Amino acid sequence: MPTIVVDVMPKAELLDPQGKAVAGALARQGETRFSSVRIGKRFELTVDGPVDDATLAAAREIADSILSNSVIEDVVGIEVVE
Amino acid sequence: MPTIVVDVMPKAELLDPQGKAVAGALARQGETRFSSVRIGKRFELTVDGPVDDATLAAAREIADSILSNSVIEDVVGIEVVE
Repeated sequence: MPTIVVDVMPKAELLDPQGKAVAGALARQGETRFSSVRIGKRFELTVDGPVDDATLAAAREIADSILSNSVIEDVVGIEVVE
Repeated sequence: MPTIVVDVMPKAELLDPQGKAVAGALARQGETRFSSVRIGKRFELTVDGPVDDATLAAAREIADSILSNSVIEDVVGIEVVE
């Protein structure tokens, strides 16, 4: 069945304490290649039936209204897989 | 600067209570097009300098050892963007 993947990330101007913690862990391990880490969410919505324009529009609407908090997060991607 | 994106999802055989809660919210709204929702994590690792094979190998290693818990999660994607 087709799946719509929605990616949500914390806004760039906000501190991301989880990401900072991981970046700190990497630095303590001596891993210097990665200068920053940010952690967001990935939603997989399984679609009943084919994905048409109305389904994609509904997914976009849900991404903005339910899956993300527009005060602190951005929807960075909506794509259909399979 | 290039970014390596790591996607981590709960294993398919595990219940995902967060995802179930969102699916329930959609159903209560009358949205029936989506049969299930699963919620995972998206990591963005900013790379200092170019992404070569060693950097990608390091990212894969980090994805398995630090960014995911292999008992309950799968790394479903590692890709370079920008």
